[in-house]
Amino acid sequence: MIVSPAQFLEYWQGNRRLTRRVTLAFPEDQLFTFSIGGMRPFGVLAWEIHQVSELTLTGLLTGEWPMPEWRNGVSQDRAELLGAWDELTARIETEMPKVDPAFFPQMHQLPWGEMSGWAAAIYNIDNEIHHRAQGYVYLRALGIEPPAFPAYMGP
Amino acid sequence: MIVSPAQFLEYWQGNRRLTRRVTLAFPEDQLFTFSIGGMRPFGVLAWEIHQVSELTLTGLLTGEWPMPEWRNGVSQDRAELLGAWDELTARIETEMPKVDPAFFPQMHQLPWGEMSGWAAAIYNIDNEIHHRAQGYVYLRALGIEPPAFPAYMGP
Repeated sequence: MIVSPAQFLEYWQGNRRLTRRVTLAFPEDQLFTFSIGGMRPFGVLAWEIHQVSELTLTGLLTGEWPMPEWRNGVSQDRAELLGAWDELTARIETEMPKVDPAFFPQMHQLPWGEMSGWAAAIYNIDNEIHHRAQGYVYLRALGIEPPAFPAYMGP
Repeated sequence: MIVSPAQFLEYWQGNRRLTRRVTLAFPEDQLFTFSIGGMRPFGVLAWEIHQVSELTLTGLLTGEWPMPEWRNGVSQDRAELLGAWDELTARIETEMPKVDPAFFPQMHQLPWGEMSGWAAAIYNIDNEIHHRAQGYVYLRALGIEPPAFPAYMGP
């Protein structure tokens, strides 16, 4: 097999750790305000990552994909964001091992179309990497050195 | 299993198609010049993606990881970049199915440390998503609507 469930969990968690560090790298007064080219501020993108991750964990466990409103963020409070983030990190750690491995090759009806469990799981992480990388540009534009990439070096 | 070799190939190729579209979305005179916060222009990042992808394909097939010089790009010629890109896309299509599935769980010595075959393969794609997303910010800063994300919706 290409990736074991334990490796996939560690891959996800490694990405979450890096995104958390990027969130902390922003000056607090820029996290929900700084933007380039009309894009959303990084704090709003981080809330979206959180909501998509929560949706994905729920979907993998239950087959239900209840769509949140994720375009606008939940609050402009970094402590609240990180509190929700850490709570979900703990849930992922205990609940991902309970996902039925048969879920991944099967096709599922998601809000945005029919996808395999694999495609749904990896889309979640692609979305995190994509928006986090936009935060890297914001940080550079603010004159701040971002945390080192990549998030995950194995196993 | 979480992802089959055929799904992983399609996932990689979906990402390559999207990155190619991002490369084409830049005005030719901005591809190798436009930059934010002292970062490399997108054309240079695209050459890096190409070189890491070529290195990864070679590594997966042979176990050899000959490090290229990838910080500075190869040329400032979009047609040359896209020619190399398309050649590699064709190689990936025919050669990835020849990778020994046993390669992925095994540990390998890479230029930047010991990694599983899985970690090496997914790092390559993470790197592509990460730098491509930076290109999205450059395009927005240039007032250009980037191609739709995500790259891959299954199977």
